[in-house]
Amino acid sequence: MNAFRLPVGPPSAERADAARNREHLLKVAREMISESGVRRLTMDALAERAQLGKGTVFRRFGSRAGIFAALLDDADRTFQQQVLYGPPPLGPGADVTARLVAYGRARIEFLLEHHAIERAALDRNQQVTIAAGGMSTTHIRMLLGQARREGLLHTADIDSLAMQLAAALEGPFVMYLAPEENATAGPARRAVALADSWESLVEQVLKVQ
Amino acid sequence: MNAFRLPVGPPSAERADAARNREHLLKVAREMISESGVRRLTMDALAERAQLGKGTVFRRFGSRAGIFAALLDDADRTFQQQVLYGPPPLGPGADVTARLVAYGRARIEFLLEHHAIERAALDRNQQVTIAAGGMSTTHIRMLLGQARREGLLHTADIDSLAMQLAAALEGPFVMYLAPEENATAGPARRAVALADSWESLVEQVLKVQ
Repeated sequence: MNAFRLPVGPPSAERADAARNREHLLKVAREMISESGVRRLTMDALAERAQLGKGTVFRRFGSRAGIFAALLDDADRTFQQQVLYGPPPLGPGADVTARLVAYGRARIEFLLEHHAIERAALDRNQQVTIAAGGMSTTHIRMLLGQARREGLLHTADIDSLAMQLAAALEGPFVMYLAPEENATAGPARRAVALADSWESLVEQVLKVQ
Repeated sequence: MNAFRLPVGPPSAERADAARNREHLLKVAREMISESGVRRLTMDALAERAQLGKGTVFRRFGSRAGIFAALLDDADRTFQQQVLYGPPPLGPGADVTARLVAYGRARIEFLLEHHAIERAALDRNQQVTIAAGGMSTTHIRMLLGQARREGLLHTADIDSLAMQLAAALEGPFVMYLAPEENATAGPARRAVALADSWESLVEQVLKVQ
């Protein structure tokens, strides 16, 4: 596929190759995970299945944990796009209570689906970086600000409340659930229960009539 | 102090010695932390200050992280005693809303005070064991059950709600606050704000008139 290159010079061509390899590797990695979970996904197995050299896999991801970190980064970006620009109620356009409920439900589904990958993305010497980035805190804070402007909330300190609600949402996956409760396969009952519980928590905080 | 031992045989005497050494070492460790924080507390420094051999410190705690784990275990036990048997509203005897508020306030203070020790108690290859044990989930679940019996709460699934409220309480310290916001010295403003926010969250959940 490298014939007929346009004369853009070696750096760009190299970059395009790298990006293509990365996409291809991530796609193959996703296939392997959906077939047999995260355990079987090693650098060697990925290189073989993707029909690329081990050196290429190493250059792209650095380590086995790096593969999972890249997968997670990719998934996180997609999730953010849906929240910021996707259809309502997750995206803009629905009323604030519906958006807060939808965000929680979508986030719980995301956390459930990606928990095994998040674990695998952790290097030995990293601590508590799961669910980092604080997207939940930022987004919830924005919606609480809107709710306050609309008279649905009379809390002065929405920073603290946003932090606590974000923790209520993500914390059970990070802090309390046993690994087997974080199963990736199928719609786990616990996640459904947590999503329903999130909905009533939101309704109580926002004084829905 | 080893003169006049009663004839209880070597194991018990040895155990009494070990317990006395452990108490003494923990007391000295607490002094060192309150004087100059967790950084200066090493196995060597502790042995020297406690006027005990390095071998004794090693036998008691196994590693530097082991010292902090023992300190935390000790503090956790004291905290639990206050919750289970101490005076109200933290201990039994106050109404359920007051107890839930008091638990949150006391727990936030505890987490703030012990955060540096919790970090230091983590070994490299441990993940997310901070705030483990689930005492908050268990205690909050018990109080929510009482609130439901008293008609203050109409949630069917108090397991999920307990998990989310426990995460709301402990999560900000574990997941979101930057290390400098977790300062051990002085009453941190963030913790005061979180405690106030916890109080109104509890009042909203329990439909306080």
